[in-house]
Amino acid sequence: PWNAGYAEIINAEKSEFNEDQAACGKLCIRRCEFGAEEEWLTLCPEEFLTGHYWALFDGHGGPAAAILAANTLHSCLRRQLEAVVEGLVATQPPMHLNGRCICPSDPQFVEEKGIRAEDLVIGALESAFQECDEVIGRELEASGQVGGCTALVAVSLQGKLYVANAGDSRAILVRRDEIRPLSFEFTPETERQRIQQLAFVYPELLAGEFTRLEFPRRLKGDDLGQKVLFRDHHMSGWSYKRVEKSDLKYPLIHGQGRQARLLGTLAVSRGLGDHQLRVLDTNIQLKPFLLSVPQVTVLDVGQLELQEDDVVVMATDGLWDVLSNEQVAWLVRSFLPGNQEDPHRFLKLAQMLIHSTQGKEDSPTEEGQVSYDDVSVFVIPLHSQGQESSGH
Amino acid sequence: PWNAGYAEIINAEKSEFNEDQAACGKLCIRRCEFGAEEEWLTLCPEEFLTGHYWALFDGHGGPAAAILAANTLHSCLRRQLEAVVEGLVATQPPMHLNGRCICPSDPQFVEEKGIRAEDLVIGALESAFQECDEVIGRELEASGQVGGCTALVAVSLQGKLYVANAGDSRAILVRRDEIRPLSFEFTPETERQRIQQLAFVYPELLAGEFTRLEFPRRLKGDDLGQKVLFRDHHMSGWSYKRVEKSDLKYPLIHGQGRQARLLGTLAVSRGLGDHQLRVLDTNIQLKPFLLSVPQVTVLDVGQLELQEDDVVVMATDGLWDVLSNEQVAWLVRSFLPGNQEDPHRFLKLAQMLIHSTQGKEDSPTEEGQVSYDDVSVFVIPLHSQGQESSGH
Repeated sequence: PWNAGYAEIINAEKSEFNEDQAACGKLCIRRCEFGAEEEWLTLCPEEFLTGHYWALFDGHGGPAAAILAANTLHSCLRRQLEAVVEGLVATQPPMHLNGRCICPSDPQFVEEKGIRAEDLVIGALESAFQECDEVIGRELEASGQVGGCTALVAVSLQGKLYVANAGDSRAILVRRDEIRPLSFEFTPETERQRIQQLAFVYPELLAGEFTRLEFPRRLKGDDLGQKVLFRDHHMSGWSYKRVEKSDLKYPLIHGQGRQARLLGTLAVSRGLGDHQLRVLDTNIQLKPFLLSVPQVTVLDVGQLELQEDDVVVMATDGLWDVLSNEQVAWLVRSFLPGNQEDPHRFLKLAQMLIHSTQGKEDSPTEEGQVSYDDVSVFVIPLHSQGQESSGH
Repeated sequence: PWNAGYAEIINAEKSEFNEDQAACGKLCIRRCEFGAEEEWLTLCPEEFLTGHYWALFDGHGGPAAAILAANTLHSCLRRQLEAVVEGLVATQPPMHLNGRCICPSDPQFVEEKGIRAEDLVIGALESAFQECDEVIGRELEASGQVGGCTALVAVSLQGKLYVANAGDSRAILVRRDEIRPLSFEFTPETERQRIQQLAFVYPELLAGEFTRLEFPRRLKGDDLGQKVLFRDHHMSGWSYKRVEKSDLKYPLIHGQGRQARLLGTLAVSRGLGDHQLRVLDTNIQLKPFLLSVPQVTVLDVGQLELQEDDVVVMATDGLWDVLSNEQVAWLVRSFLPGNQEDPHRFLKLAQMLIHSTQGKEDSPTEEGQVSYDDVSVFVIPLHSQGQESSGH
């Protein structure tokens, strides 16, 4: 697994600092037990469950949150996993963590709910993101810093690859004859209904300055009294409404695609940090609309008939803005088969992907599109993961 | 389209009345214009947009809501469609309903948002369900009746089939080599996170009588102080928590599969009616947790290479409780090809599907499973739909 490739490029045109951060490493989960006072007693320090961890953080409003996340999230995750490790190594998680069976049919209840060990890893990832978000909030406030970041994490554990995503980075599986998305982007557009719903429940969050309704464009005085296309939180289709004065306010979600913004400010709707972020020149907070909880997908690596060149590509939005999944897969499939002897081929592939975003001649991007954003890429070979895991 | 088959069976063992109701008919949408006083002026009464409508309503707590829905929903839908008919017949819905173009790039804004005529039909279905729910609320209150119902509606319009679902009925497309679900069931289990989230935001809805958390089983005194499996609204995985006294309350969602109940009372989480429904012997209302808005899927019939025996099967949960999608498809594929000359074959197929739920010898249900619920089935042949639509 340590031959995973990583490459990054800093686009100084965008900001002075690289706002992307990356982290990777071994994840060593000890078997612990809670003492009476909730102190941790490491019972069997030699008994390890070992996994691997890769993470990308795309910062905004400065690099502080991304740096904190890169330094913190893996510890939060290790702690969360250690807290449930007895459930992880059992064939089925026990109803009670200490294994005491209070009701004889407890295993049956767990079975009927379909709760598996992988659900504990998903739960641990969800909790770790939230814990890390709290740490970042405290640290930023204590140090007088600001900012936020997206988080995309891959964890290889017990023959499975978990991908947890909060933000607009993306991970895909690329095989000889398959491209499978392993994450889903969370932006003001993809989370429109959740965000509008929140503004419906808590209208005070908009402080009378924004309208929660979506229109094809921002309305103006001439539209007053007309019937225009709109949709509200409960609608997935469109309808018409007669324009009132309050509809002329700035829209809660405004703009299309790459330009879409939440409260005119943020391009993502999930992530870590941003505890202090406010709409420019107002007291309106962004944080209530942001979720730190990731969506987690599970890839059962043990079930795949793995081939040498099967990889997972993780990258921040700077890559995906100029390269489609298909274009990335094409680059992967063109590069790897000819370089099977090269021990650095995954590193070189990651570098090549980065170069492809810089408008080089041989770039497959449409019309030689160039990324002016920071770009970070991990290329994770699954073959070695699978081998190690199945050898467990 | 009028050779669609319909059959139903009343299981008197369950209740005295048939709580299932069905409706179908032509949907004639007139081109209207709003007068100054919002009165409707039918400008071109001869100018029609014609569709077809099929609906199933599965009542609970008596047949009243289902009967009202069967008598009302199609009128609500017709009205909603007539209100946006100019947008339906245009190549692209105009930003302003009267067609006045206030900003020259309005068509471009609509284009960029990807708003198509079918989004207006989806919006009309969403609005019609909500309007119908309000009508039912008023009518039930005025007549001193109670009850609620699920609603599954199929509408064939301009070469497309729209399926709107609120509840646990189901529609599937069955073709020679394809089975495609056209709806998704809304139950306390499938909508767990939405329901828990609502209880998190408005804890007063539980009146201190229920816990919003999910556990593998209802907790009891012996569990106090133990760490047990649980999940909350933001979690898709599972974790452990130390049991407190408030965790011993009755769960907001309790039971598994067919037995799952919302607030110990209801097996569905979307539908019409239930405005007065309360948890037995309490003042706790169910209605805040129920959505009347349906999920709508669109089948582009014109894009399918239709074959003679392609059908949509719509049925209430009584059918799907004992027959899987695959079993229904097998019955459809066994029956239709041998009966191509029979003008009543879709009717006979619907009857045969019903009989298959009654544990007849030749039934393909596992272990001759029998449905004790009311069962209603529509079999809609797509071939004639496609022909009529494409001939428009």
